[in-house]
Amino acid sequence: MYRDKTCGELRLSDAGSKVTVAGWVQRSRKMGGMTFVDVRDRYGITQVVFNTSDNTEENALFDAANNLGREYVVQVSGTVTERTSKNKNIPTGEIEIIAEKLKVLNKSEIPPFTIEDNTDGGDDLRMKFRYLDLRRPAVRKNLELRHKMAFEIRRYLDSKGFLEIETPILVKSTPEGARDFVVPSRMNPGEFYALPQSPQLFKQLLMVSGFDRYFQIAKCFRDEDLRADRQPEFTQIDCEMSFVEQEDVIEMFEGLVKHIFKYVKEIDFTDPFPRMTWNDAMKFYGSDKPDIRFGMKFVELTDLVKGKGFSVVDDAELTVGIVAPGCASYTRKQIDELTEFVKRPQVGAKGLMWVKVEPDGSFKSSVGKFFSADELKTWAERMDAKPGDLILVMSGDAMKTRKQLCELRLEMGNRLGLRDKNVFAPLWVIDLPLFEWDEETQRYYAMHHPFTSPNPEDIDKLRTDTGNVRATAYDIVVNGTELGGGSIRIHEAALQDEMFELLGFTPEKAQEQFGFLMNAFKYGAPPHGGLALGFDRFVSILAGLDTIRDVIAFPKNNSGRDVMNESPSPIDQAQLDELQLTLKPME
Amino acid sequence: MYRDKTCGELRLSDAGSKVTVAGWVQRSRKMGGMTFVDVRDRYGITQVVFNTSDNTEENALFDAANNLGREYVVQVSGTVTERTSKNKNIPTGEIEIIAEKLKVLNKSEIPPFTIEDNTDGGDDLRMKFRYLDLRRPAVRKNLELRHKMAFEIRRYLDSKGFLEIETPILVKSTPEGARDFVVPSRMNPGEFYALPQSPQLFKQLLMVSGFDRYFQIAKCFRDEDLRADRQPEFTQIDCEMSFVEQEDVIEMFEGLVKHIFKYVKEIDFTDPFPRMTWNDAMKFYGSDKPDIRFGMKFVELTDLVKGKGFSVVDDAELTVGIVAPGCASYTRKQIDELTEFVKRPQVGAKGLMWVKVEPDGSFKSSVGKFFSADELKTWAERMDAKPGDLILVMSGDAMKTRKQLCELRLEMGNRLGLRDKNVFAPLWVIDLPLFEWDEETQRYYAMHHPFTSPNPEDIDKLRTDTGNVRATAYDIVVNGTELGGGSIRIHEAALQDEMFELLGFTPEKAQEQFGFLMNAFKYGAPPHGGLALGFDRFVSILAGLDTIRDVIAFPKNNSGRDVMNESPSPIDQAQLDELQLTLKPME
Repeated sequence: MYRDKTCGELRLSDAGSKVTVAGWVQRSRKMGGMTFVDVRDRYGITQVVFNTSDNTEENALFDAANNLGREYVVQVSGTVTERTSKNKNIPTGEIEIIAEKLKVLNKSEIPPFTIEDNTDGGDDLRMKFRYLDLRRPAVRKNLELRHKMAFEIRRYLDSKGFLEIETPILVKSTPEGARDFVVPSRMNPGEFYALPQSPQLFKQLLMVSGFDRYFQIAKCFRDEDLRADRQPEFTQIDCEMSFVEQEDVIEMFEGLVKHIFKYVKEIDFTDPFPRMTWNDAMKFYGSDKPDIRFGMKFVELTDLVKGKGFSVVDDAELTVGIVAPGCASYTRKQIDELTEFVKRPQVGAKGLMWVKVEPDGSFKSSVGKFFSADELKTWAERMDAKPGDLILVMSGDAMKTRKQLCELRLEMGNRLGLRDKNVFAPLWVIDLPLFEWDEETQRYYAMHHPFTSPNPEDIDKLRTDTGNVRATAYDIVVNGTELGGGSIRIHEAALQDEMFELLGFTPEKAQEQFGFLMNAFKYGAPPHGGLALGFDRFVSILAGLDTIRDVIAFPKNNSGRDVMNESPSPIDQAQLDELQLTLKPME
Repeated sequence: MYRDKTCGELRLSDAGSKVTVAGWVQRSRKMGGMTFVDVRDRYGITQVVFNTSDNTEENALFDAANNLGREYVVQVSGTVTERTSKNKNIPTGEIEIIAEKLKVLNKSEIPPFTIEDNTDGGDDLRMKFRYLDLRRPAVRKNLELRHKMAFEIRRYLDSKGFLEIETPILVKSTPEGARDFVVPSRMNPGEFYALPQSPQLFKQLLMVSGFDRYFQIAKCFRDEDLRADRQPEFTQIDCEMSFVEQEDVIEMFEGLVKHIFKYVKEIDFTDPFPRMTWNDAMKFYGSDKPDIRFGMKFVELTDLVKGKGFSVVDDAELTVGIVAPGCASYTRKQIDELTEFVKRPQVGAKGLMWVKVEPDGSFKSSVGKFFSADELKTWAERMDAKPGDLILVMSGDAMKTRKQLCELRLEMGNRLGLRDKNVFAPLWVIDLPLFEWDEETQRYYAMHHPFTSPNPEDIDKLRTDTGNVRATAYDIVVNGTELGGGSIRIHEAALQDEMFELLGFTPEKAQEQFGFLMNAFKYGAPPHGGLALGFDRFVSILAGLDTIRDVIAFPKNNSGRDVMNESPSPIDQAQLDELQLTLKPME
């Protein structure tokens, strides 16, 4: 071992002891007859002191120290000593090592950016030199958090009798899965494996096999055009249970999320997580993943506003508003900013109505031409707006308006500091719709996947009121982000056949696409259900980050490229020949 | 929840309690007015009893029980009762449930083979219906063992400060890696990712990043022609440490292996594992992975046997033998069997010499024509053969003969029952050669990989005695199987350049193939080393299995096919078009 102590563990109580540490030169400062070198490793930073007086004929220690460059790898032995000027900001700040021996284990070229939390390196540069970016404590901590979370997830699930079972990465490509990554097989020319988008089929097979509590922290793959926060490979906490109902799954995984908060963040959720139906989430927050760290619930005003000759609301399906507490003092400019915000193409609203409830109880509004003070008072009463509050109202097509108002609500939450990254507000969204209507193809699609069980109470509505059938499906949401979701699956052949029919599958097509699972289901499939949590997302929420990229050691960029090792890349003709493939020139 | 008890937990102390269990019908027997149904789940089997007298007008319980088929999924409620005729072979054998309610949760077609440890299903059938094969307790136990081992591996490494860090599955294809699986990129047409053969480069990058203790239970991929016991995807326990020497790595991972034996098999290895140099392993066992559960070490006789006019040994580079204790009583037929064994093409020897040391001390041998009793006595003395023992001797080219005698030694171990699957004999093989000479291309190759550090004592021999340079590399072997291995890596640029030169890489080629790692090494690479253990292999050793296939939930066959879901398979033309690929017809 090149060291007997790390750079993070020495304290005042170690003063006087002889130690050897190893690490990277963070910085060095020459001050008169002394040189101070900060040595960094994964565990911290320790100050090492070299004195001119140590320069002897045999041991040019001081000179050597002055030749150290940033990021040199060094091994230093010496005596731990109390510092005269202590640094209260770091745990090792009360001591320093008076160097007696210095060995340069490796030199370093000057790194392309500074290895500090606030680095001078831009995004592209940091990604190209990701191995240096990972030296920065801020990034390192994300991977430490990720390790700890994975470990605690396994500890919890193991304690509940779950088995982690690895499912294959080389799987069957499904004919409709045009967005699968495929892998040509050399041994079976002309044939391809696919990389799994999720272990869904395998975990259901495992239930058929009798493994009644399965989980896996599993790599999944999607060859999608990448949005800001997608990766072609990502990690899922994938779980399935047999002989369970929705309540059992929710209870088990609420327990998991609480366990993680408790053992990783020291946050103890003692009450059950709130639950909200999907309909209520849309009605009161305009979103299937509401951020409930703050209020500002939607209040519908449609009935109050119609018939006063204001065409914007008269013609609208929905008029709905929120109350921004204490914002009656907003200036014209501030309100204009909000109007601009909702008119941005990303939000897409036509405009914004506002009503200030002045401290004296009077009203000032953008709609005074159409509504009397008395009328505005009925708004304020329904919305529980108090003097000093600002009412923000939008009108239009119901679904679109809700989504737009949702964006505005989140923006107001940001402006009012109500979205603190250290506050966590988890909830379950339940009773998700089973089907989703597609305007383009004029038919229903499965909202989740075709194995999702309908809510038993709604089974008689399958054909009569298809769009309103609720699934036995649930999402878990934290701070406005979907952490994951799942469902109870269909295990009865007859119901499954009906679902396929409703979804427009011919029996042949269903067999072609899901045949091996349907065959398996003939041999005694137990009732089962489960869920999957996005692990990258889970880590990023706990790390207080907006993107998953920084919780992944070696992420790809938005074009699916690893700019560090320049992949993907062309391959040899010989390799293509062996796979019996030809590249088709671009047209 | 469909149950409040599992089928494995009820004991005599539960007698009298009302319970509900759920599971699969293992078998049912009608005996007079009673029907006994064995219900199975992951945890065990519980006997349920139905009485004729329970058949009431409202509740045709007995009839329902008699209509149950094998593998039906049922939910049964009833009262736990002491059995009159107890089954001592199963933990639940003292009780049965007197059924009060029965619900068929799902029916089952008759399974294609019996769901029992000794099934009537052949290999192919079991693989096609793997989801049913996995119901058999013998197979289920392997996956339970695998889960437990993975969990304990993580527990040990976490306790030692290791971080599990996920490295990418979509990586860069290296130009010479003709055996990489490749993945065409839709977003970057004409370019390919590769699936990693191991996380080697990434774990070395992580060391450059300062993560001084890394591990990962990682999926790895090799598009190789599959031998009996290879899989195109397999799982590795991949580890790397910084600021360490060989001794540190060996100590850490010997600790890991001991931890697993202790917490999974309740076997406590208190002494250090033996260590053997690679040269000794070859000399005394003819193998770089000796099975040391038993002796029968090789004894060289070359000097004793030459010059007696027996051309077989006179012309041979090596004559070497083993002593099979107590086998002087072998019949002509038995000895013929051994001769046939070594002559099989898989072993490839020309013949076998034998000497029986008779109980009275006289000798009977196949070489009496050439050697006197006195001469045979010198053999017996050197080999420490006692009266009653059988000496088996082979001659020829040194390396080949050692490998052949190794096969014979293992065969004798089997015949003598010395290779007990419940006995575990781990050892380290150290001082592996750094280079391997290739006759065909007449040059040296890296035995491990080009980043393996030479033994510091042998650095001066790099150019003068290349073939005898030892690597700072080590393998861990259990019961004649290589569990894993690793090395200290080169971290100095100058030594790395020299290695590349010795291995015939031009600087350009080295840059092309390993450029991004070499670039990373310019920025302060710490001394580092590590190892990887084959996880599938590790599980199969502890499970006492000869192949890794049965410790993998959904394995591929020897053609790399998953016969359950028929993959790989052809893909749509549309998908090929999107990837800008064309299939080249077979010539």
